[in-house]
Amino acid sequence: MLFQNINYLDETFQLQKQGCIRVEGRQITAVGTQPLEPLENEEVYDGRGKLLMPAFVNAHAHAPMTLLRGWGEGLSLQDWLNQRIFPFEAKMTDDDVYAGTCLALAEMIRTGTVSSTEMYFGADAIARALLESGAKMNLSVAATCFDDSDLADLPRQQEAEAMIRTYNGAGGGRLITDLSLHAEYTTTPKVVRQMAQRVAGTGLHMHVHMSETKSEHDECIQRHGKTPARYFCDLGLFDVPTTVAHGVWLTDEDIALLREKPVTVASCPASNMKLGSGFAPVSCLLQAGVPVALGTDGAASNNGLDMMADMKLLALGAKGITRDPQTVTAGQALYAATRAGALSQGRADSGLIRVGACADLIVLDCTAPWWTPGFDTVTDLVYSAKGTDVCLTMCDGKILYRDGEYLTLDIQRVRHDAAAAARRIAAQL
Amino acid sequence: MLFQNINYLDETFQLQKQGCIRVEGRQITAVGTQPLEPLENEEVYDGRGKLLMPAFVNAHAHAPMTLLRGWGEGLSLQDWLNQRIFPFEAKMTDDDVYAGTCLALAEMIRTGTVSSTEMYFGADAIARALLESGAKMNLSVAATCFDDSDLADLPRQQEAEAMIRTYNGAGGGRLITDLSLHAEYTTTPKVVRQMAQRVAGTGLHMHVHMSETKSEHDECIQRHGKTPARYFCDLGLFDVPTTVAHGVWLTDEDIALLREKPVTVASCPASNMKLGSGFAPVSCLLQAGVPVALGTDGAASNNGLDMMADMKLLALGAKGITRDPQTVTAGQALYAATRAGALSQGRADSGLIRVGACADLIVLDCTAPWWTPGFDTVTDLVYSAKGTDVCLTMCDGKILYRDGEYLTLDIQRVRHDAAAAARRIAAQL
Repeated sequence: MLFQNINYLDETFQLQKQGCIRVEGRQITAVGTQPLEPLENEEVYDGRGKLLMPAFVNAHAHAPMTLLRGWGEGLSLQDWLNQRIFPFEAKMTDDDVYAGTCLALAEMIRTGTVSSTEMYFGADAIARALLESGAKMNLSVAATCFDDSDLADLPRQQEAEAMIRTYNGAGGGRLITDLSLHAEYTTTPKVVRQMAQRVAGTGLHMHVHMSETKSEHDECIQRHGKTPARYFCDLGLFDVPTTVAHGVWLTDEDIALLREKPVTVASCPASNMKLGSGFAPVSCLLQAGVPVALGTDGAASNNGLDMMADMKLLALGAKGITRDPQTVTAGQALYAATRAGALSQGRADSGLIRVGACADLIVLDCTAPWWTPGFDTVTDLVYSAKGTDVCLTMCDGKILYRDGEYLTLDIQRVRHDAAAAARRIAAQL
Repeated sequence: MLFQNINYLDETFQLQKQGCIRVEGRQITAVGTQPLEPLENEEVYDGRGKLLMPAFVNAHAHAPMTLLRGWGEGLSLQDWLNQRIFPFEAKMTDDDVYAGTCLALAEMIRTGTVSSTEMYFGADAIARALLESGAKMNLSVAATCFDDSDLADLPRQQEAEAMIRTYNGAGGGRLITDLSLHAEYTTTPKVVRQMAQRVAGTGLHMHVHMSETKSEHDECIQRHGKTPARYFCDLGLFDVPTTVAHGVWLTDEDIALLREKPVTVASCPASNMKLGSGFAPVSCLLQAGVPVALGTDGAASNNGLDMMADMKLLALGAKGITRDPQTVTAGQALYAATRAGALSQGRADSGLIRVGACADLIVLDCTAPWWTPGFDTVTDLVYSAKGTDVCLTMCDGKILYRDGEYLTLDIQRVRHDAAAAARRIAAQL
């Protein structure tokens, strides 16, 4: 495919006008403002009035939780989990997980996200949905432990190990399997230490919830005499590339610690605000040089998976809480939503527009009123654009969505099956 | 027009399924779940898969500032105003104000807003755009004064008085003229007192910026020994219905004061976060019974006019800053974005779906993935829906937007003229 006459963001996020971008197979093979002649049988895409940019990478999500969208609102976090979320999840079958994942993928693909870092159970069902959709995913099943068990004996860990054996690298590398601990308060020091040993040297990545709420953060200090970051670090968990979700209550000492480790903080501003968890210290993290990526969290606590909306919130939330309008620039928010996420997934070949990179890209229609006058494209993208401006979503060179059509998902069936699954479960509760 | 088989929010924001809504002339003349037969020559609208609800009312905006969207990013508030905004505004002609207002109206109408409370200069141009668009507006020209002048001698006040004589009640009541003081720090006690005398007993409403930034709030206390709320109150300004924009730094005493007055606080969460102003005490205001409406502020500090996005932000911001997930419910946010705004404009006949109300309504297409599973419509509206889900916008019974078409605006011309105006001005700076 040859995109012609199209404005695009180059690998430094500078706007280039009237560019030519060629995609062959999975890759971007030409990028520039020199006109190119179409190859034989090559589709030419007329990009006038449009913008081509890297697709979004959602650095922390729980895709199947679309089934719980709007299920249990206005509760405190613990009541929300115990009274609404956990009982619902206990009723979810593999088919339900599949249905919820398909719905999440539809929403992500529609709004320009091609890859997400996931933590959930039902790995077979999630993997099946992902592989069918054509998107990318870093998938993990989180270990939890409330007794003296060894990591290897935990049912969820056994599911995780089976997943890794079966799916790591599936779909030509679209599906990557990670290891995961749910959180400090849902595991034991023994299990954390065993996980650190398990993951060391494997090339696998870690994914963990950390310092999401003040009570969780404070209770860790009471239990262990140290913050969750120090606790995990001392147990060796952060010696491999790790995605830390949330990090709302990270201290300055935590941040100093994390900057020495291969850790990315996946900030989830919408979820953190909605659950009353607070505001992550995004400005301090960026200033310290800790990579910050952007996650939506699950649709039960957001309640959407639209990275465009949450990219704005990442920048707004940081400015609001620090009262500094100059902190977390539009460029930093855009980087968090794209390249930083791809790097956190170990996908160095994704998240930017350059020759040799995977063709993980989106095209935006810029004819809506909010794109005028167009003084600064990155500013417009972060503060004015909408997820629904996406008119083409491409992953590994394959078009997943274009002009209202989903090319890999049967959207009618996806919506129907997800609604039916959610209502069946709700009726049992 | 007869909307059939359509889900709708009734006047208490309860979802009613498969309803029938009739619009005749400017009014809603039937609402219910009883099937109705079409009248002769009546258009029937098949509402399956759709939701009908009150249109949004934007309670604080500066429509012409769409021309400044993205002009001057990442600056502190004073630098932003002095170096970027004021020099740009000084170059704006009436034609520019018209072009910017048309662009704002296009964005508002596209995303479901039919009425806004405005404060700007160039009233003739704004009124012309508004009357052509078919939308509603409460328009004011803000008085500012930095010397010993009398109110009546201020050029902006003279523009305001001419506007009131010419336009109050124009367009069959669509255009209402308000009186306005810019803010405490841009006026004098004499002018405030004269404004209070001017507005008393006229039936006109007031519109004023107040306690937007901490420094503005604190400096008022230094100058006058009292907060801006107490200052305005003591000078008699709040004895008429008043829209107070922002109110970020309102104290508990201020809130106690405002609850005794006919004041609505128009909260502008996106702008307040983006400019680093802070978070308005929305929870406390609602708890005290002070009406809270929702504003976008101008597109230079948001950078959009999408009430759906900002409605979510109103609820999220309050939960995040109070760390209480139960505060500012979805229902309260929706009320702020619709009915509270209409009431603040003195439009008791708008902002809700009931017989006899103005047909100021929108229809949303609920087939996007984010509307599934659909456990709770108000929750889905506030946290999951997008402004672009709007597929029909009606004001006073007239369709302004439907399925991609603007019926009162030439959108190509609007975009072209606004872009040309903005670039011409920018080139002079």
